[in-house]
Amino acid sequence: MIKGSIGIVTTELYHHPDPLILEGGEVLSSLTVAYETYGRLNRDKSNAILVCHALSGDAHAAGYHSRDDKPGWWDSVIGPKKAFDTDHYFVICSNVIGGCKGSTGPMSINPSTRKPYGADFPVITIGDVVHAQKILLEHLGITRLYAVAGGSMGGMQALQWTVEYPDAMKKAIIIAAAGYSTPQQIAFNEVGRRAILSDPNWNKGNYYASEEKPVQGLALARMVGHITYLSNESMHEKFGRALQGKDRVGFDFSAEFAIESYLHHQGDTFTKRFDANSYLFITKAIDYFDLTRDGSLAKGLAGTKASFLVISISSDWLYPPSQSEEITAALAANGREVQFNEVKSNFGHDAFLLESGQMNHLMGRFLTSTVVRDVMDRNVQTIDEGTTIAVAARRLVTEGTNHLPVLSHDNHLTGIVTSWDIAKAVASNCLWLDEIMSRDVVTTTPDETIEKAAHKMEKHSLSALPVVDSEGKVIGLLTAESLSSLIGGRQL
Amino acid sequence: MIKGSIGIVTTELYHHPDPLILEGGEVLSSLTVAYETYGRLNRDKSNAILVCHALSGDAHAAGYHSRDDKPGWWDSVIGPKKAFDTDHYFVICSNVIGGCKGSTGPMSINPSTRKPYGADFPVITIGDVVHAQKILLEHLGITRLYAVAGGSMGGMQALQWTVEYPDAMKKAIIIAAAGYSTPQQIAFNEVGRRAILSDPNWNKGNYYASEEKPVQGLALARMVGHITYLSNESMHEKFGRALQGKDRVGFDFSAEFAIESYLHHQGDTFTKRFDANSYLFITKAIDYFDLTRDGSLAKGLAGTKASFLVISISSDWLYPPSQSEEITAALAANGREVQFNEVKSNFGHDAFLLESGQMNHLMGRFLTSTVVRDVMDRNVQTIDEGTTIAVAARRLVTEGTNHLPVLSHDNHLTGIVTSWDIAKAVASNCLWLDEIMSRDVVTTTPDETIEKAAHKMEKHSLSALPVVDSEGKVIGLLTAESLSSLIGGRQL
Repeated sequence: MIKGSIGIVTTELYHHPDPLILEGGEVLSSLTVAYETYGRLNRDKSNAILVCHALSGDAHAAGYHSRDDKPGWWDSVIGPKKAFDTDHYFVICSNVIGGCKGSTGPMSINPSTRKPYGADFPVITIGDVVHAQKILLEHLGITRLYAVAGGSMGGMQALQWTVEYPDAMKKAIIIAAAGYSTPQQIAFNEVGRRAILSDPNWNKGNYYASEEKPVQGLALARMVGHITYLSNESMHEKFGRALQGKDRVGFDFSAEFAIESYLHHQGDTFTKRFDANSYLFITKAIDYFDLTRDGSLAKGLAGTKASFLVISISSDWLYPPSQSEEITAALAANGREVQFNEVKSNFGHDAFLLESGQMNHLMGRFLTSTVVRDVMDRNVQTIDEGTTIAVAARRLVTEGTNHLPVLSHDNHLTGIVTSWDIAKAVASNCLWLDEIMSRDVVTTTPDETIEKAAHKMEKHSLSALPVVDSEGKVIGLLTAESLSSLIGGRQL
Repeated sequence: MIKGSIGIVTTELYHHPDPLILEGGEVLSSLTVAYETYGRLNRDKSNAILVCHALSGDAHAAGYHSRDDKPGWWDSVIGPKKAFDTDHYFVICSNVIGGCKGSTGPMSINPSTRKPYGADFPVITIGDVVHAQKILLEHLGITRLYAVAGGSMGGMQALQWTVEYPDAMKKAIIIAAAGYSTPQQIAFNEVGRRAILSDPNWNKGNYYASEEKPVQGLALARMVGHITYLSNESMHEKFGRALQGKDRVGFDFSAEFAIESYLHHQGDTFTKRFDANSYLFITKAIDYFDLTRDGSLAKGLAGTKASFLVISISSDWLYPPSQSEEITAALAANGREVQFNEVKSNFGHDAFLLESGQMNHLMGRFLTSTVVRDVMDRNVQTIDEGTTIAVAARRLVTEGTNHLPVLSHDNHLTGIVTSWDIAKAVASNCLWLDEIMSRDVVTTTPDETIEKAAHKMEKHSLSALPVVDSEGKVIGLLTAESLSSLIGGRQL
């Protein structure tokens, strides 16, 4: 196993027995969702994070398919001790429908013709993509995600999730995305589609049985896309006006500059791993994406309930920071809890895959900023300070707990009693609780972050903290067990 | 004639008898340059302005080819009372070599094969384009331009002019251009080229005799280009997410959004007026453009002598303001006279063609901001104040002048004598100059603008002004003749 990595993983397939009705009105009579998971789902299934991929991504977000393989597309932030800490979270990533990496898409067999769908695949939307993910989560028994996250088209999916299923997640991370596609984004997508459609080998989408695939068109589409994923600055830093394999310009039409050679390589490599029809359908889904209602993004996001982290990239001109700011403003207008951060980077749109330091920091901090209120046991058992040791001991045993907050007559916390206290009392022949209970009680408040609370427990060697409100009343108990359950056994 | 317009114009052809040696080493054995001119060349051929066109432009910069035609591409700033005021300047625009609008290019007949050059046309550079323009100007008898101007690739040509022929112009206007092409610019060009090269109808450049032209590839190239010429903001204002000819999305691959339909129209229209091979050769010339020397633009521009106006456009992301600022800084580092202005516009790169108000204002002001020093007669004849009327009259006649500044013994200006003064002296029987000369002399300074000086001349009904330096010494004479010659008869 490679250090710091989730290690070797495999893509699973979920074959859904029922049809999926699409937003366009058509029906996918059979549905397969390809997915990968990393980490372990906890007992109450509350630590799941759904990660959504971008245009050319797939279910393989982290780890390795084989020892020699390249890691998954977001391996930089998924794995032990990374933002999506697989020691604590259960991370799920599935291939979008319409894609070409295992989920039902244009390459799949159309049950009614027993041939690949090709261009007859129904047009899909980001909503349809999310519905298929929801079906997968139901299959996995997950009704509420801890978080949903994604960059670019993945961010659109995450945002769509928060609108369609407001109760299905606690947190959402939206990176380098938008609340709707702009004409410039549509324009670049349309150029890519036209490149594919005008490649004679595209053959109206029926090329799977042919030797000749529409590689020229797909490569061209990818070249256009790739320019938009990089910033002018990063291209300048990486390539400048360097020539490719020669000392002086050759006055010919070969790829003379390094940037040309790089783009050709990106385009040509892409055709080996991606399907032209999928490119058509997925870009179309991006074009359709529009969460505004009556022209207002605030109205469109009014039903959301999640806590949000919105991240933009300073040099991203395809999904510029202004679009992330627009999402943030729309959420804030609805009173949503929302943090906005701009990653300073010269890498352009692709920075969400590349700036692993900043991404890990921002996302990791956001994911772990759980407060005590979120995980405390509200059904807390207490005991009166005038109780005998014998009664207290019996209460500990019958309640199956090791901590009993001790209350005064007016219901204020005056101490805590544990089995260890009982043992001390027995040793010293005490009869009354108030003779032996710990009076120097360390407490927490409902709004304290679990990191701080956990730090207190560690510092004082405690296994539980009473949670007191602003009036000093005990409203819950934070136990090591509840923390562990939250984060799948994390040692804070 | 249409009001405010130069009216009906025609494109001329100049067939150059000698070969043109290209920077790549190849030779164009025969050269034709298509050009248009507007306005009248003055006697001393000092009022000529060369206007250079962008990638898809041509020699038809202003006026109309017929009553029903659209005007030339820069008609908004060329014509009577516009920045390039054809009442005063002689404006020349020629089609670039490698183009397809009359100048020698890939569509031209290759003398050695008697067939069109096609892809066998030699690769050209912005330097070659400028050399062909220089040949045209020599043919027109113009050795020194009043100004050279251009936007985008036209700005590159103008800048190249100032480097190659530093003495051949007084002023240069560089708009939305760059001192060298960046990798992002090269990348977009390469995508366009690849679209053409991978169109089967391109047929290695031999399609002129065929019914099937590489229109798909060329349209695609133009679509990519067009996106880069607009800003995201202007697209948003113009199209938003409006649908094309329908009320709701159709879930199909037609041009659903207005922006898609617009781009298709732009691409398809372009194929009717432009040649795919020309697109290849001209974009290649742009890629090669690099005026840096040893990696320094300041070094590359060290030899220039012109006075510069550099204009950028706030929303231009293809040739961003930073590149105009770089040119400005490089010129300033060499002590060149340079003004920098950023046009505030949402139109993106294309704003240099669209923002006629700002463009007329900035360029008009720059072109007319000539100072007295630029046009004064330095070989000024003076006369001593102790001279007789008879001697003064002889001096006027022998020098062929109508104004003789009169100097004191210590060489300071004390008055001026004209033939009118002589007439007055004769009428009143005076003998000595100091009895009749005008002592209330209106003067100008070398740094006064010609507009101000001309205003003085008009106000005092004078036909000449002595030019005095800061110490009161006469260093020249500004005459109405010199002003008229400068601006081709302009009434200031």
